[in-house]
Parts: sequence; structure tokens; C-alpha cells
Amino acid sequence: MTANIRIYEVGPRDGLQNEKAFIPTESKIELIKALLNANLDQVEITSFVNPRWIPPLADAEAVVQALIHHPQIDRLTALVPNMKGLERAENLKEIAVFMSASATHNQRNINKTHDEAFEAFQPVFEQCQSKNIRVRAYVSTVWGCPYEGKIDPRVSTQITKKLLDMGAYEVSLGDTIGVGNPKQTREILEVMLSEIPAQKLSMHMHDTWGRALANCLVGLEMGITSFDSSIGGLGGCPYAPGASGNLATEDLVAMLLEMGYPCHVQWDALIQAGALAQKLLGRKLMSRALQAELGKQNIVTIES
Amino acid sequence: MTANIRIYEVGPRDGLQNEKAFIPTESKIELIKALLNANLDQVEITSFVNPRWIPPLADAEAVVQALIHHPQIDRLTALVPNMKGLERAENLKEIAVFMSASATHNQRNINKTHDEAFEAFQPVFEQCQSKNIRVRAYVSTVWGCPYEGKIDPRVSTQITKKLLDMGAYEVSLGDTIGVGNPKQTREILEVMLSEIPAQKLSMHMHDTWGRALANCLVGLEMGITSFDSSIGGLGGCPYAPGASGNLATEDLVAMLLEMGYPCHVQWDALIQAGALAQKLLGRKLMSRALQAELGKQNIVTIES
Repeated sequence: MTANIRIYEVGPRDGLQNEKAFIPTESKIELIKALLNANLDQVEITSFVNPRWIPPLADAEAVVQALIHHPQIDRLTALVPNMKGLERAENLKEIAVFMSASATHNQRNINKTHDEAFEAFQPVFEQCQSKNIRVRAYVSTVWGCPYEGKIDPRVSTQITKKLLDMGAYEVSLGDTIGVGNPKQTREILEVMLSEIPAQKLSMHMHDTWGRALANCLVGLEMGITSFDSSIGGLGGCPYAPGASGNLATEDLVAMLLEMGYPCHVQWDALIQAGALAQKLLGRKLMSRALQAELGKQNIVTIES
Repeated sequence: MTANIRIYEVGPRDGLQNEKAFIPTESKIELIKALLNANLDQVEITSFVNPRWIPPLADAEAVVQALIHHPQIDRLTALVPNMKGLERAENLKEIAVFMSASATHNQRNINKTHDEAFEAFQPVFEQCQSKNIRVRAYVSTVWGCPYEGKIDPRVSTQITKKLLDMGAYEVSLGDTIGVGNPKQTREILEVMLSEIPAQKLSMHMHDTWGRALANCLVGLEMGITSFDSSIGGLGGCPYAPGASGNLATEDLVAMLLEMGYPCHVQWDALIQAGALAQKLLGRKLMSRALQAELGKQNIVTIES
């Protein structure tokens, strides 16, 4: 329990990309600044995927532009699918690429085979290395795929190793549909950690079935020190309308702090960011800890 | 992982007692029957506390009366505070008594010292033994008290042992305000299990901060095989308005089934009971798994 726990905040990207309503650029900036103010280690602020695919993030350039002089620009990341996306992400110090452990999901999500994905990433990694831009990589559907069901952890391991070899500083393993359970998490991590150091992995768990924290607990016990989460639990599950999606940052941080893990997130500022997210979206968000903290403080801002 | 996991459903009592609206007796009966149909091991159906304290359960006699010829009457329990409550609970095969590990909470909740509580329970245990009625006991605030903060697990252990000695077949340890974390759960259970067999304990966790399942996971690993939960997550937290309360039965059962624990709850019938609870209360309930399952099935019954 000595290594510092790193929290990678995905709300402004992974959360907002699932919103039907377009959140105004200045509101996004306000939220991102509130998240930085809470001392989250890294914040994924937008996506340079083709805006036709994700209209809620069509203002990606404007979001980056508004933050390029921010003193914590180092802590900002954007999702980048290919060279075209990378060109649009200029001025950032970190980008993230993404693919899926499930061949079918990969094909349906980014329209590529695994090999074609690696091929598309190659020039991105090269360009980033030459420009001194850090690259993070996502591997989704590690715990399960809506098309293929369970995914062989040896496949996820090989994809992860390849992405690390190509230059990713860290690979985030995604439970994209939130089906993971603690027993399975132990089994998957046992396979992966036999070939990959724990410090190279992050866990990106979804709370669709309420098991995100239980799964993270297993990861913590096995040496994982980096976790993805989303303010308020922003971001639903496209495969189960009305269900919860990303693990809420407040729930994760509250557990880490209560258990005494070294985590330098500022709790009060984090709750302020969660309350702001609720205000911007005009509804009560799914985070248990956010509602408990606001309830304790008798701040009932949004009726459910 | 061989012992059968026992699920003790508290929704009709612990859940509904926190509702502002009075749910009609026939709706309560309908919900209780749906829960029995899901094959839950035991269902706590009402409370014989003075109805002035808990108006939503003022129809306790009528609820029991409607169920006395049910073939699964053995699986029904009612909360009973004293001899007067026990008289009203006639015809049931199981009752539950309750007190708090925190002296302050005990005083404020049942207006008794610990010793006075044991004294009041004594004739209840005696009467139950002579009438062959099983007695379950609750010890609340084991993980923390709204007045005293952390509670010494040695105090909880002594109270639990006393209740077992008096004749309780099982003691349910409550995280009444949902503040427990997995590290603390391990510490508390280590103390308790050094003096009490795991088979004599149940865990009654609240999901106020989202950690109920992570805490249950630790309990499972340490040999606990009995858990309390509430359909849909019914029941809020009086100390944090708007926050979630009891662990949802659907979330618990989904995790157990996914992990391969032996649990004979019928999943489809359980989801029907959860959907019914939503319908009766006219709002979306807090259970993650209920929303995921209904979302998967595209049954969006209640707008959040």
C-alpha cells in the first residue's frame, strides 16, 4: 500500500460522448478546470474521432484551444484514432489510442481488424515519439464483449504487450459493458501480470452491474495502482439503456481514502466538480458517494 | 465456495419503513409473494414496532394475517422490539430483535442501554423458545455510528455472543450508515471470527457510499455465507437524504451467480419482483443490476 494511486478521469470524454444534449464548450471547460482543481492525475478532455460519429464532442479543437495556456496542460489527454486525429490534437502532451480485445467489437467499433488497428497506430506512435507526446492505449471488452461474450485473457495480454512495445506508457484495460466479477478479475489479472508489470496497467471498470469497486479492490490487492473513472459516474451503457456506466470517480476516491491508500485527490474539490457536472446536465448523477456527500451536507441540488 | 449462500430479504420491512407514502397492504402482499417466488431464503415482511414510530408499517397485523396460510410461511420474519411486539407477531415462525453496537445509537433508537436491551429481550427469547419460534438478532452500527464514529469490534463481538447465547440462531451485523470499507471489514471480521463461527453471522451492508458489494466480497472470502439485502435497493439513509441505502438484492445475487457461488435465487423472478417494487413506488430504484437487466431487455418502465 505504498505506491501512489493514480486516477485517470474520463468524464469529459467518455461521459459526455454518451450525452444526447450538446454541452456548450465553455461548460466543458468549466468542468475540466474543476476536475484539475480536484488534483486528479490526468483528465481526458475530448475525442478527435470524426465528429460525425460523436456530435457531442464536435468542439474538440475549441476545447483544446481554450486550455493550451492552462498551467496543468500536461495533465490533459485526448482520444485520437489515427493520424488525422493526431493532427487535430496538436498542443497536447498526451493522447490515447483505443482498440478492442474482441475482434468483432474492434471491427464494429473502429472498422478494423486487430492487425489493421496496429498498422493505423504505427505512424501515430512514431509521430508522438518524435514530438515527445505521451501515448496511452485502451483495450476494451477485456471482461466481456456484447458480441463474443467472454474474451480469452491471453488475447488481451498479447494485444496489451504489443501496444506497450509500440510505445504506450500504460494500457487501460476496459470492462466496457461492466460484466466483470471479482473472481474473473483475479483470473484475468493473473494471466496478464505473468507477462506485464502491474505499473503498466490501468483498470477501466464500468459499474453497470454494481461491481466496479469490488473489481478494483481485487486489482488493488494484486498491485494495480492506476484506475480510470468518471465524475459522477457520467456515461451510460449503450447496451443497456438507463443503466449506469463508468465507475464514478467519487466512489473510487472515497473508497481509496477510507482504506488509507495514498491518493492525492482533493475530496471537497472533487465533490464540487461532481455537483457542477449535475448542474450542467440538469439531473442527479449515478455516483453513490456524490449523493451521500451532498445528502450529508443537505445540498439537494437536483431532484431525482 | 461450497456452502450455500443464504439471502435474507429486508425490502418489505427495512425498505418500506423509509418510504414517505403508505403502500397499500395488498401491494405489500403482492411484493412479498413475488419475493418468495424468487426463492429468497427468508423475507422480513414487517415490523411490530409501535406504529406511531413507523406509520408506513402500521398494517403489520394485516400483512401477517394475509400470509398465514402461505405454504412458505416458514420463510417469513417480522421485526419485534419487545413482548408486546411478540404478541402481535403470533403465527410467524421467525422473529427478529434489534439493538445497536453503539451505546448512543442504541439509546436514541430504542431508548435503552445495552443491558436494558438484553433485559427486554430475555422474555422474548424465552417465549420464542417455548413456542418454537426462531429468533434472529440485528446488531447495527458495527462499521460506524452517526454519533460515535468507529465502534470497537470487540464491543460488537461481546454483544453478538450474548445474543447468540440468549438463543439467536444468527446475528446480522449492520453497516447502518454504509461507511464500511473492505480493509475495515477484514479487521472487524478478524476480531469477530476469532470468537464466533462464521455460520452464526450475517452481513447487512448499506450501499450509501457504493462499497456494499466490495465489503460482502471480503466477507465471502472470510467464510460468511449469509447476507441481508433489499429488493431494488429499497430504503434510503436517514443521515444522508437522497443517498442510497440498503444493498440491492439484485446486485448481490448477480455477483454471486456470476462468481459461481451456490445461490438458489431465481434470477428472472427476482427481476420481476424488482420491477414490481418500482411500479408500486412509482420511481426508478437504485439497484444497478435491476436497471442493467431491465435496460438489456429494453423494459424502461419508469423514467428516472
